[in-house]
Amino acid sequence: MRDIFNQELRQLGSDLTSMAAQVATAIERAAESLRNGDIIVAEQVIDADERINDLQRDIDDMCVMLLARQQPVAGDLRNVLSALRMAQTLERQGDLARHVATIARGRYPEAPVPEPVLGLIITMAEAAVRAGRDVAELVETRDLELAATIERNDAELDALHRQSFQMILDPANELTRQQVIDAVLMGRFLERFGDHSTSVARRMAYLVSGAALPGTHDDEDADALH
Amino acid sequence: MRDIFNQELRQLGSDLTSMAAQVATAIERAAESLRNGDIIVAEQVIDADERINDLQRDIDDMCVMLLARQQPVAGDLRNVLSALRMAQTLERQGDLARHVATIARGRYPEAPVPEPVLGLIITMAEAAVRAGRDVAELVETRDLELAATIERNDAELDALHRQSFQMILDPANELTRQQVIDAVLMGRFLERFGDHSTSVARRMAYLVSGAALPGTHDDEDADALH
Repeated sequence: MRDIFNQELRQLGSDLTSMAAQVATAIERAAESLRNGDIIVAEQVIDADERINDLQRDIDDMCVMLLARQQPVAGDLRNVLSALRMAQTLERQGDLARHVATIARGRYPEAPVPEPVLGLIITMAEAAVRAGRDVAELVETRDLELAATIERNDAELDALHRQSFQMILDPANELTRQQVIDAVLMGRFLERFGDHSTSVARRMAYLVSGAALPGTHDDEDADALH
Repeated sequence: MRDIFNQELRQLGSDLTSMAAQVATAIERAAESLRNGDIIVAEQVIDADERINDLQRDIDDMCVMLLARQQPVAGDLRNVLSALRMAQTLERQGDLARHVATIARGRYPEAPVPEPVLGLIITMAEAAVRAGRDVAELVETRDLELAATIERNDAELDALHRQSFQMILDPANELTRQQVIDAVLMGRFLERFGDHSTSVARRMAYLVSGAALPGTHDDEDADALH
C-alpha cells in the first residue's frame, strides 16, 4: 500500500514538474512573440494552453483520488494539497501567457505598442520568463533558495509594472487608445504572472520547511492602482 | 466522532456563508462608491478585505485539520475540498472589489471616468453585485437553479465588458489616458469578479449533483482581448 502511494506521489511530482515546464515554455514563447512579432510562436502558446489545462485536470483528479484512497496525514497530506493548489496556480499562469500571446497575435503584423512602451513590456515579459523558469526549477528541485529568489525578483516585476503606468501616462509617448488598452492589459497579465510565481514559491517554502505561509492570497498589486 | 465531524462540517458551511456574504457586501459598496463617489464607503471596502482574508485562512486551516483528523471519503471529502476551493475564489473576489474601490477612492472627488463610460462601468458593477448576492445565496441554500442563473448572468457581464472596450475606443468619448487606464482596469476587475462567481457556481453544481465540472479553470475572457 505504502509502495503504491509513494509511486503515486512520485507520479504527482513528475506531472507537476512537467506542468511547470510547459508554463515556462508558454511565457518564453509569449515574450518571443512580443519581441519578434512572431505570429506562429503566438499561436503555439495559445494552442499549448489546452494541454496545460488538461494536465491540471489530471493532477486534480489524482490528488482527489489520493486523498480518498490513501487518506494521507501530516507531510503526505501537505504534499497532496500543495500539488492541488500549485497546479491551480500554474494553470492560471498558462492562461496569462496565452492572454499576452493573444494580444501580440491580434495586432500582427504591427507591434501591439510602439517604443519605448514596447521595450518596457518586453522587459516585464523577460522578468516573467525568469519567474516561469525559476518556478519550473523550484518545482523539480524544491530548492528553497530559489523560492527566495523568485519572491525577490517579483518585487522588480512590480516596480516595472508601476513604471509602465508612468510611461503610458507620459504625453511624450504617442499611443492610440487601443495601444493604451493593450499596454495596460499586458502589464496586468505579466504582473499577475509574477504574483502567481511568488504564490508557488511561498507554497513550496511552506511545504518543504513547514514555515508559516505569509499572504497566501497572492495579491501584491494594490499599490499599483493609485 | 461522527457527531463532531458533522458539527465541524456545519461550522465550515457557516463560515463559508459568512465569507460569501462579506464578499457580496464588498462588491455592493464598491459599486456604491462608483455611483456616488462616496470615499467613506470605498474605505470600508478596502478595510473589510482584511477580514475576508482572515476568514479564508480560518477556512483553509479548518479544511486541512478536517482532512488530517477525519480523513473523510466520498461526499464528505468533496464537501471539504469544495469549501477549500470556494474560499480561495471568494478571497480573490474580495481583492477585486477592493481594487475597484481603490480606483474610486484614488480619483476622489472626481469620478474615475466620465459619462457614458462611467454608466457602463456602473452597469458592470451592478451585474457583479447581482453575482455576489447570488453566490452568497447559493453558498447558503445550495439551490442549483441559482447556479445556472449565475452562469447565465455572467455571459451578460462578459458582453458588457466587450462593450466597454468599444466605448473606450470610440473617439466621441473624451477620455484622458488616466481615465482609459482606470476604465480598462475596472472593466477587467469586474469581469474577473463575474468569472469567479461562475467558478463557485460550477463547483457547487458539481458538489451537489456530482455533475461533471466543465472548465474549472474559470477563464472566459479570452474573446475580449481581440
